Amino acid sequence: MDKQQEIKNVAQSLNMKPYKKGWNSATHDRSYVPRIELQTQSSKLVDLETAIMKSGLKDGMTISFHHHFREGDKIINMVVDKLAQMGYRDLQLASSSLSDVHAPLIKHIQNGVITRIQTSGLRGELADAISHGLMDNPVIFRSHGGRAAAIENGELHIDVAFLGASSCDYLGNANGYSRSGREKSICGSLGYAKVDAENADKVIILTDNIVTYPNVPVTISEGDVDYIVLVDEVGDASKISSGAIRDTKNPHDILLAETAAKVVEHSGYFYDGFSLQTGSGGASLAVTKYLREAMITKNIKARYALGGITSHMVKLHEEGLIDKLLDVQSFDLVAATSLKNNRFHQQISASTYANPFENGSAINWLDVVILSALEVDTEFNVNVLTGSNGVIRGAIGGHPDTAAGAALSIVVVPLIRGRIPCVVDKVTTLITTGDCVDVVVTDQGVAVNPARPEIEQRLRKAKLPIMSIQELKDKAESVIGKPDSLVFGEKIVGVVTSRDGAVLDTIHQIIDEQI
Amino acid sequence: MDKQQEIKNVAQSLNMKPYKKGWNSATHDRSYVPRIELQTQSSKLVDLETAIMKSGLKDGMTISFHHHFREGDKIINMVVDKLAQMGYRDLQLASSSLSDVHAPLIKHIQNGVITRIQTSGLRGELADAISHGLMDNPVIFRSHGGRAAAIENGELHIDVAFLGASSCDYLGNANGYSRSGREKSICGSLGYAKVDAENADKVIILTDNIVTYPNVPVTISEGDVDYIVLVDEVGDASKISSGAIRDTKNPHDILLAETAAKVVEHSGYFYDGFSLQTGSGGASLAVTKYLREAMITKNIKARYALGGITSHMVKLHEEGLIDKLLDVQSFDLVAATSLKNNRFHQQISASTYANPFENGSAINWLDVVILSALEVDTEFNVNVLTGSNGVIRGAIGGHPDTAAGAALSIVVVPLIRGRIPCVVDKVTTLITTGDCVDVVVTDQGVAVNPARPEIEQRLRKAKLPIMSIQELKDKAESVIGKPDSLVFGEKIVGVVTSRDGAVLDTIHQIIDEQI
Repeated sequence: MDKQQEIKNVAQSLNMKPYKKGWNSATHDRSYVPRIELQTQSSKLVDLETAIMKSGLKDGMTISFHHHFREGDKIINMVVDKLAQMGYRDLQLASSSLSDVHAPLIKHIQNGVITRIQTSGLRGELADAISHGLMDNPVIFRSHGGRAAAIENGELHIDVAFLGASSCDYLGNANGYSRSGREKSICGSLGYAKVDAENADKVIILTDNIVTYPNVPVTISEGDVDYIVLVDEVGDASKISSGAIRDTKNPHDILLAETAAKVVEHSGYFYDGFSLQTGSGGASLAVTKYLREAMITKNIKARYALGGITSHMVKLHEEGLIDKLLDVQSFDLVAATSLKNNRFHQQISASTYANPFENGSAINWLDVVILSALEVDTEFNVNVLTGSNGVIRGAIGGHPDTAAGAALSIVVVPLIRGRIPCVVDKVTTLITTGDCVDVVVTDQGVAVNPARPEIEQRLRKAKLPIMSIQELKDKAESVIGKPDSLVFGEKIVGVVTSRDGAVLDTIHQIIDEQI
Repeated sequence: MDKQQEIKNVAQSLNMKPYKKGWNSATHDRSYVPRIELQTQSSKLVDLETAIMKSGLKDGMTISFHHHFREGDKIINMVVDKLAQMGYRDLQLASSSLSDVHAPLIKHIQNGVITRIQTSGLRGELADAISHGLMDNPVIFRSHGGRAAAIENGELHIDVAFLGASSCDYLGNANGYSRSGREKSICGSLGYAKVDAENADKVIILTDNIVTYPNVPVTISEGDVDYIVLVDEVGDASKISSGAIRDTKNPHDILLAETAAKVVEHSGYFYDGFSLQTGSGGASLAVTKYLREAMITKNIKARYALGGITSHMVKLHEEGLIDKLLDVQSFDLVAATSLKNNRFHQQISASTYANPFENGSAINWLDVVILSALEVDTEFNVNVLTGSNGVIRGAIGGHPDTAAGAALSIVVVPLIRGRIPCVVDKVTTLITTGDCVDVVVTDQGVAVNPARPEIEQRLRKAKLPIMSIQELKDKAESVIGKPDSLVFGEKIVGVVTSRDGAVLDTIHQIIDEQI
């Protein structure tokens, strides 16, 4: 048989085509241009306005951002300014979180450019304005794990993600650092941004550092990236560690940290190969220092530390006390640089970190988490979002995710903060439900959830100052009295979701005259 | 309004549920078991027979394997023996490639356990038996990039993937090495296996080294893994570099390598920041050594080297002459160990390597690839699959992928091998089409594809021995005469596909009496 006829027949029998050059238009033509030149001709590289226009963004759609630069973020304000200037209206802004630095959003909310917000937290002027009723639609608050799950299962659909990166090659492979050592801005992990990149309809990388291919190891993959925009500055790395994660010198915090470290040590979960996370907040961060001493004394090493990674964790890692760091968010410059340089300091996505529906989420393999709180109530419920005046001033973060995932969750909180009791009858806003909180450590005593009698027994044996949560509450009230109840307006300004996507609580408008 | 009622109303307006503990059955319950114990209770950890039964594998389905252990592979024979013993019939075996060591498959083909095969290549007794008509269905040959694309777009649907791993944690996170330094078998990159893991309906990891979570950095992610089987030995690492990728001491090969290095040097693509790949085969591998000298002399560094990574490449990398290694397959123990230890030696999947439909495939950013051949014809077509006797004895590998992707593709081939001319009128089997082959380097002269006159000009200027491909063919024939045409039987034993999924050529049965 003629060869060409045979190939036709065989192809037909296999439900394939006979080969002919160019038969498949999806196949790339050869190019003879030296690759260093070809890269720079990348059609992905455009200015911000072009990227926005080409992305197909329309009024009413959802845009997303990450908060890895925290107070140093330069992206959100820049992009929303541009969107306002281009005449966009009625956008939903879905950032992994928002900070003080995003106060300029207030005017864009007033002007109708941004009409809905989803975030982990709010701080500063923006939080204050929203608490006072700035928006018509309530802000939807999600935990980091809850956000990742909502994005992956489509409950939070992102039309266009605007993601700042410390380095990006001409094809779109992007990182929160540059391993060629020349980044202008470094933020370390892009763990939250990775979920946006993988799930948004369109992805625009904004970077101040375009590098040659291949920008390996790759965090955000070029296959997920539609446009690359070169900007002056992505973020100010010196401000990553401001806000929630400042180092404490507060003697109350230090006492709390020492006590919490003792709780870990005697909890039954302090064994060679254990795993741990410390949340943001001075006291919970400071625990690491005191645990270090116990680890050295008892010759105990941790298998991994998880979460927002700090310089304290890096120190323990470099000393060999923690085998591996799983980093969804680098909490300071030391951590960001360690992620760049240390081979067992590994970046993970928000989904790998805390997706509530994945058995393999790192939170589920935590032995111990140490978290802070604004308020704890006698049901062990925790509030980390609204202040004693009812105004939004924090972030859910990974609080409910890690509390639920870990074998032992410890909340550290001063009994009294300023003139306000922190152990109360009922939290102002419910963020982490009491069934996920095992031990509450205060500067005046330690309460163990009645669901964990074995823990209480071990801590009593170790002579920790155990009392009931009711006793802690009474103690606080006996010192400064029971505060007046807050009076809220009718308007709902915030909706708190549970990590698995239900409505957990609402936050009402604050009316100044009533405070 | 009552808080619970308000939450219900808000939930309804947001199309969400009001929170109630346990409302979402997909959410994990808390566990208080120390995580080191909880891991070992993983329900994924079963014996091979249980894994197969639970996978839902049925007669007629497709099973897949990787060939990262090459001649040292212990998985394929073990699994197919077990499947035969369990009574399975009519399976399609889709391995990324097959080697001499897989000769025991012959009996399973004879017994009807395996009735169809898809692979990159075949060698040894199995290849010989198939060439002689062992199977009723022709073997479908795919390039590495073509296989990745076919798996991703569903043309090659994998029901159950059986993937050997050098380390795997209790959750299923698997690697081709163990960074805790205790692996029994090391193969380095799991680049081909990664595509199977991400796309197969069920994934079974076979490992001889179960480690504690987290086995980071992760190649095959626990989210893709259904079962983990502990076996005695996954593979013999000492045999990774046998077969196609032995180091050459052949003086013809050395001459070829020296000439090919000169071609690269004067091609116009030898600039600071260029990228390169060398295929398997003694001469093409040896090119690296000679390029090294030119790189040092001219102070030229490569941005990356791609593909099967060898100890030669690692040496240049460690000397600072190659910035980054992108490794889809570690070609020897040195490379496997370097992947484990060197931070710029990066693992990539077969799809990232060579998917023909992705602009960001690493092959498309190659300046230069140097490939070997069994035969080249006067149209610059290349055969790397069938020997001069018409028997299958090789593998497509990444040959057509890299030739099409690179700006400059160079094929090195001795003019005469044994008593057989290697430059011929028409290749026995068409693997890489002539439009993707720019320069043919032989020990008797260099031919440049007329489609690349600028290259010919540069090489002539550099005084390389340029002649036409017809002249090379004539020269070969003048030495040993024109060989008799091979006589094949009617039966089609192999179908060669193009990298973009069409039928390129057929391979017919060999009948011994006719040789």
